[in-house]
Amino acid sequence: MRIDRRFPGLSLGRKDGIGMSKDYIGYEALTDAAARGVVREALRRAETQGLIGSRNFYLTFKTHFPGVDIPDFLKEQYPDEMTIVLQHQFWGLKVEEDHFEVTRTFRKLPAELVIPFAAMTGFVDPGVQFGLQF
Amino acid sequence: MRIDRRFPGLSLGRKDGIGMSKDYIGYEALTDAAARGVVREALRRAETQGLIGSRNFYLTFKTHFPGVDIPDFLKEQYPDEMTIVLQHQFWGLKVEEDHFEVTRTFRKLPAELVIPFAAMTGFVDPGVQFGLQF
Repeated sequence: MRIDRRFPGLSLGRKDGIGMSKDYIGYEALTDAAARGVVREALRRAETQGLIGSRNFYLTFKTHFPGVDIPDFLKEQYPDEMTIVLQHQFWGLKVEEDHFEVTRTFRKLPAELVIPFAAMTGFVDPGVQFGLQF
Repeated sequence: MRIDRRFPGLSLGRKDGIGMSKDYIGYEALTDAAARGVVREALRRAETQGLIGSRNFYLTFKTHFPGVDIPDFLKEQYPDEMTIVLQHQFWGLKVEEDHFEVTRTFRKLPAELVIPFAAMTGFVDPGVQFGLQF
């Protein structure tokens, strides 16, 4: 899939779009939900297969979004967004319909993270040069 | 959503990608399925609400894809892809999980079209400058 260059999905987010009618279909919400579905499916495959070889995921999310459960020191250090990398040092990845859970180490101590997909704003799998922002 | 510029989803389709590992997650199939889901949802809203005002949809599909049911003269005229516009002259829009049906006029005669979402390669709603290609 690509979002057509002449009709960039991005422009839906602009408040100053000249000549744009009201987006009564709600494309931005639809494509964001679709992107989150892609991330959920990628994580499900990692849950089943693990992250093979040197593969890793970069997951960006809003630290204060409702339902996000992470250690307080991370919320303080990253008051808006943070990006976690899943590569070797994680375990307990559990993917549900509306959120995922994973344990990884920060400052050499294990921390369990609960992240709703609705809190996510970005996903990158650099091994195949694939990324989504929403 | 946008597909990150540094990591264009498009590049997944290249067979000559240098330094790309195997896409074992199957992102291209995932994002294509997600895009088709967006199109399905947009058509569902049109099914319920109609196409308000001057709104229209441009739908591009493979004319010879399995399950496509359109008049023979259209298959002959468009041996690969064709784009139909839904605006005023259509009726009987019925959206199912894997395909949609619609009747519109060609050469002033009504023709019923059955188009599986898997046959689709493009969608544009010019009124809000929104487009997807997959």
